[in-house]
Amino acid sequence: MAKNIVSMKKDYAQWYLDVIRAAGLADYSPVRGCMVIRPSGYAIWEAIRNELDERFRDTGHENAYFPIFIPESFMKKEAEHVEGFAPEVAVVTHGGGKKLEEPLFIRPTSETMIGAMYARWIQSYRDLPVLINQWANVVRWEMRTRLFLRTSEFLWQEGHTAHETRAEAEEETRRMLEVYRSFVQDELAIPVLAGEKTSTERFAGAEATYTIEGMMQDGKALQMGTSHFLGQNFARAFDIRFEGRDQKLQYAWTTSWGVSTRLIGALIMVHSDDNGLVLPPRVAPVSMAIIPIFKTSEELKQVRDFAMGMLGRLVGADELDKAQSRVSPEGRLTAFFDFHGKKKVVLDERDMRPGEKHYFWEQQGVPLRIEIGPRDVKSGSVVVKQRFGERLQIPAAEFTPEKARELLQTMQKGLFERAKAFREAHTYTAGTYEQLVATLRDKPGFVRVNFVPTPDVEARLKEETKATVRLILPPEEAQPGRDIFTGEQTDIQVIVAQSY
Amino acid sequence: MAKNIVSMKKDYAQWYLDVIRAAGLADYSPVRGCMVIRPSGYAIWEAIRNELDERFRDTGHENAYFPIFIPESFMKKEAEHVEGFAPEVAVVTHGGGKKLEEPLFIRPTSETMIGAMYARWIQSYRDLPVLINQWANVVRWEMRTRLFLRTSEFLWQEGHTAHETRAEAEEETRRMLEVYRSFVQDELAIPVLAGEKTSTERFAGAEATYTIEGMMQDGKALQMGTSHFLGQNFARAFDIRFEGRDQKLQYAWTTSWGVSTRLIGALIMVHSDDNGLVLPPRVAPVSMAIIPIFKTSEELKQVRDFAMGMLGRLVGADELDKAQSRVSPEGRLTAFFDFHGKKKVVLDERDMRPGEKHYFWEQQGVPLRIEIGPRDVKSGSVVVKQRFGERLQIPAAEFTPEKARELLQTMQKGLFERAKAFREAHTYTAGTYEQLVATLRDKPGFVRVNFVPTPDVEARLKEETKATVRLILPPEEAQPGRDIFTGEQTDIQVIVAQSY
Repeated sequence: MAKNIVSMKKDYAQWYLDVIRAAGLADYSPVRGCMVIRPSGYAIWEAIRNELDERFRDTGHENAYFPIFIPESFMKKEAEHVEGFAPEVAVVTHGGGKKLEEPLFIRPTSETMIGAMYARWIQSYRDLPVLINQWANVVRWEMRTRLFLRTSEFLWQEGHTAHETRAEAEEETRRMLEVYRSFVQDELAIPVLAGEKTSTERFAGAEATYTIEGMMQDGKALQMGTSHFLGQNFARAFDIRFEGRDQKLQYAWTTSWGVSTRLIGALIMVHSDDNGLVLPPRVAPVSMAIIPIFKTSEELKQVRDFAMGMLGRLVGADELDKAQSRVSPEGRLTAFFDFHGKKKVVLDERDMRPGEKHYFWEQQGVPLRIEIGPRDVKSGSVVVKQRFGERLQIPAAEFTPEKARELLQTMQKGLFERAKAFREAHTYTAGTYEQLVATLRDKPGFVRVNFVPTPDVEARLKEETKATVRLILPPEEAQPGRDIFTGEQTDIQVIVAQSY
Repeated sequence: MAKNIVSMKKDYAQWYLDVIRAAGLADYSPVRGCMVIRPSGYAIWEAIRNELDERFRDTGHENAYFPIFIPESFMKKEAEHVEGFAPEVAVVTHGGGKKLEEPLFIRPTSETMIGAMYARWIQSYRDLPVLINQWANVVRWEMRTRLFLRTSEFLWQEGHTAHETRAEAEEETRRMLEVYRSFVQDELAIPVLAGEKTSTERFAGAEATYTIEGMMQDGKALQMGTSHFLGQNFARAFDIRFEGRDQKLQYAWTTSWGVSTRLIGALIMVHSDDNGLVLPPRVAPVSMAIIPIFKTSEELKQVRDFAMGMLGRLVGADELDKAQSRVSPEGRLTAFFDFHGKKKVVLDERDMRPGEKHYFWEQQGVPLRIEIGPRDVKSGSVVVKQRFGERLQIPAAEFTPEKARELLQTMQKGLFERAKAFREAHTYTAGTYEQLVATLRDKPGFVRVNFVPTPDVEARLKEETKATVRLILPPEEAQPGRDIFTGEQTDIQVIVAQSY
């Protein structure tokens, strides 16, 4: 176990921070509640962004950018919305040396500004649907912050769409939830449950909120993405009206959906271990680190030639040439390898002991570490240490790009399976309220339980157990049973858990 | 000439706005001075970002993200810096319903916040260089705004680096200026002059500022990117110190450099015409629009089959399949074509007259419009209308991806050559102050002139001509001559022009 990382079992919250610090992912800034996302962390966000962006594009969305400032009066146009967000906004009162006539809120989310623009752009049913996404920073003033999970400023994407009919908007809401679900499972290797939120947990101003929820290694739930059906609430507030096919003026139906840098927190909490970060290969910015081991300068030369030969086979001669002309930090050579986009392969020739390099790359969560020493040169083989999986010895000629991709793909799948098995092992059922309370008290994890959620019973539950209804299971996944509060038979089954 | 675009000659400022509106690139928002970048405009920014990002990566830089908030006290640590930026900052005074203990500035630039973090991260010469770039929004409160050129909020990238020696930092400053110069010339097809700014025009807190300047079609100069050598000014203000190779504690040498969404304004003003936007193919999000022309449903079928065949040849069968399963706006099929990244090819089957589509894509600045009618199907040829260049009739079998790329590349080059010829035709020399004044009054453009810039003569020049020294020509490009103010012989030659 690494000395700079406390054991997950001993102190989960500290372990989480230790993993982040050891991998250099992020740092608290001098501004309360705001984080700095360091290059290793930001590269993960870029991998997430690039992949999601392609999925948004394939579902017909385009990116745009709207102002960070929202006039106070805009927020007030939708009553529930302002009630939900006003307590956590940051307010600009002065600009260019003068007091502003109207204070400006820094966007906590952009339904209002985008609604105002849609009202200008949408005149006729021919202008619909409008399918826009924005990558941006948002601010929600937080008292208790935790890197990636809850900070005053964070990065996210927010999709905002407008449609001709209720049915189309509802379909969009579900489509984007499915985009999130498949993205998180395929790319982040995190199994999630998808379903609707109760009215208590709904987005301020929405008619329905859908969520994907993952289980962290402490058994708590993390909300990883939400998709909202906004009905005509924002269209009425901002006068988004169009002339329909029947030539009558009518309000548009809108949706919004988002995921944030919180996903990096999920990645850490689902896959990492007491040795540090573990990253699923599809979003690991560095796929492979090559560590030469040598004692004499003669050995160095042999090992280096051997390593360069292997690198050339992995990335191709052209890319190796480019890599050699690329400016790199001292002692490191970075080439790019094709695996779900461009991933880095780093030849680490820094003036450090091999053991230090080993721990460095292990804590960075790099999927494959390849060690090459004089003995390997002689035997013509390489030792591949997998961040999740066995240590392998492979003839160098067989360590082809295809072989590397196969190892990475197998690791991706293995991480998903492990996380899924963990979730299944920590999911319980409860037939009575007493059982629910006892399970939540004794066993970290999710509890499947039958009841019809109402603000009253949810308040009682939270008060007595600190847990909440994470989602209402969709009909096809729900087992009917007796409502633990009323004793009536019901088709409604929910997931209850403590959460971040 | 398009009815919705005023002639450039008649009203240049209005022409600029008309081109933007006709292409749907941006819109003013309800917040004073802030713009909305619409999908067509944002896609250009993404093309710029992707290409620059690769050039930053190849010169060893990594991306990161720093907080948008800067404590007032941070800005005050560097005297010149706060003097330069304080008048135009937006100030947050309240957060989470409470008055803040210390007001927070919204970043107008991030030297101070990043300096504070570098002070934490940099301990030893082994930690250097630090080569970080950030893509972000910044706010500078502006009284007079103009879409893309000057808005209160804009998007940009800001590179911030720290080095062990003065020489390395100076080298970095020049390297990044060269990255900008070659990027703008290669990708945006805009010829620029590169050189140092005078002390009057220097970045607040820098020892030296270098700039690239382009000439717009009204003869005015536009500053398109700057690279600053900050000396040890910010290192002293933020205590960025490290133990050197000599084991002595010393201050780091820092640089910063940036370009912004202003580059989109440059693209418009350099290449567009009275028919609307003209985009250099390398940054045009849509490379080609295919417009079917038909009268009967029998013709429609023939034309459609022919168009799909051509599209399949251009993008490949796999991509055509994907395109057909992609969700697209009604009546449009979007496939992706490889030309300096992924560019769109749109088959436009909207229910509009072909003439309307023709103008639509012309005003969007799409490089190639391909019209296919029954006559073309019979003759087996396609008509290619180039946004800049001749109308071509090509046998369909010869309109291969290679041919399309060749046409696009030729157009890219042609646009650069045209802009360069324009600049050369509008660059003058002046041997006396009177000549300079007369030239600036009578002939829009740049004037090459010999004098040693000082705050006094620059103030006089600005007062009497509205023009400024855009840059000091580098020694290898400067012609020696007599200083127009002192009459002394000098090697210093500068470019004087009116500017945005």
